[in-house]
Amino acid sequence: MDFAIIKITGGQEFGISEVQFDLIYNALSLGLASMLATTVFMLVAQPRVLPQYRLALIASAMVTFIAAYHYWRIFDSFKEAAAGTEVFNEAYRYVDWLLTVPLLLVEVVAVLSLPAARRSSLLTKLVPASALMIILGYPGEITSELGPKAIWGFLSTLPFVYILYVLFVELTKSLDGQPAAVKATISRLRLLLIATWGVYPISYLFPMIGDWTGSEFFTGADGFVARQIGYTVADILAKCLFGLTIFKIARLKSMEDDPSFAKVEAKL
Amino acid sequence: MDFAIIKITGGQEFGISEVQFDLIYNALSLGLASMLATTVFMLVAQPRVLPQYRLALIASAMVTFIAAYHYWRIFDSFKEAAAGTEVFNEAYRYVDWLLTVPLLLVEVVAVLSLPAARRSSLLTKLVPASALMIILGYPGEITSELGPKAIWGFLSTLPFVYILYVLFVELTKSLDGQPAAVKATISRLRLLLIATWGVYPISYLFPMIGDWTGSEFFTGADGFVARQIGYTVADILAKCLFGLTIFKIARLKSMEDDPSFAKVEAKL
Repeated sequence: MDFAIIKITGGQEFGISEVQFDLIYNALSLGLASMLATTVFMLVAQPRVLPQYRLALIASAMVTFIAAYHYWRIFDSFKEAAAGTEVFNEAYRYVDWLLTVPLLLVEVVAVLSLPAARRSSLLTKLVPASALMIILGYPGEITSELGPKAIWGFLSTLPFVYILYVLFVELTKSLDGQPAAVKATISRLRLLLIATWGVYPISYLFPMIGDWTGSEFFTGADGFVARQIGYTVADILAKCLFGLTIFKIARLKSMEDDPSFAKVEAKL
Repeated sequence: MDFAIIKITGGQEFGISEVQFDLIYNALSLGLASMLATTVFMLVAQPRVLPQYRLALIASAMVTFIAAYHYWRIFDSFKEAAAGTEVFNEAYRYVDWLLTVPLLLVEVVAVLSLPAARRSSLLTKLVPASALMIILGYPGEITSELGPKAIWGFLSTLPFVYILYVLFVELTKSLDGQPAAVKATISRLRLLLIATWGVYPISYLFPMIGDWTGSEFFTGADGFVARQIGYTVADILAKCLFGLTIFKIARLKSMEDDPSFAKVEAKL
């Protein structure tokens, strides 16, 4: 006996149990709470870093603010879908990424405090690549046919790998000449980037993994539940934890840059 | 088979497919998220420019704040229209433009930091012209008869061309004696102005283009979908991207005006 039937964009539908309903419902609420709290933190914590790092914090606050809006919409859409009055709108996540991924890139580049020319040349490469990655991914996400899904997935992976490569190289380069504490935190940021961004293509591949392995886990209701929870956890790590790591880097660098700030802020 | 029948102000109705419904729905949500985030950004980023540029940022925040309100209304109106419980209200866009276009003009004039007399003489010309442009456009938008549509459209085009001409000339004049980075950004602003404002009369002309060409694309459901998405994309570019470009100009000019500000803000 299914607790609810969820219809999703593209015509698929899944019968889920009450436990599965609760899992998604509570994960989405956790996502919304995390995004809202991180937004407020990033805005009120601005005076805790030097002015040159504050735009990075504002960019991070915009990422979680936009994500909070979309989690609120996704939460409502899921409730309506379970009640049978609406189709669960998968597109909110893509609309969210279309806005937040370029902003995440701005945030990383801003905190590295690179020279202006280097910064703008990086963003001119990365921002269009990120838009391309998301726009190419969407048609594949909503189709239930594996052929087109594989093609769109492949096309979307090209800018994905390119962005990760450029960021990884850039973060590695920026390790030189940093104080030890900053170095350790940037290393962690680099790791977080790979670990969290990796969740998205894996979730995307679920229906194909199901087809190859013949396991119903990946294609049926279980796969839907795992995908929703996977995307939500990945979003919390890639936006909230990532933003808080950016804050930590900005704060460590602020103390390093200005001993009088360090004295006031940390009684050093 | 139509997914929904949308009735709009003026008595027309369009049968749209699920994909068309999703396209408009997601575009409107993207519009709302963009307006909200830009509003918060413009308000919290104020200390990142010198005081003389902050009113330009506040004007920009008011533009996106008013637009966010209207996108929230348009989004709800579209959902209700698709459910058959309401007529889709096209007037929200016109009420929005009536408030936001004069504010956009204030924003541009404010960031150019012209002498007070010049500034107020410009606004005395531009603000009434912009109100006239929108008020004359609305009767043409809601009528389905091509004769009156052409007449109102022509009358509305007169102030439209006048405003664009004055702004273009003014922006071009202001290029003299600006540092290279500011010059490039103002050039881009000028381009953005022409490119985004051009979308509105083209969308308006859709039913007439359909009549001339005999193509149903422009007059039927496809035309309705293209118009809604066109207006939304144009609004995001003309309000959010335009505002962020104004922010960039204000920030570059702040650094130029006050080297000690540049030193604190960007470690220059």
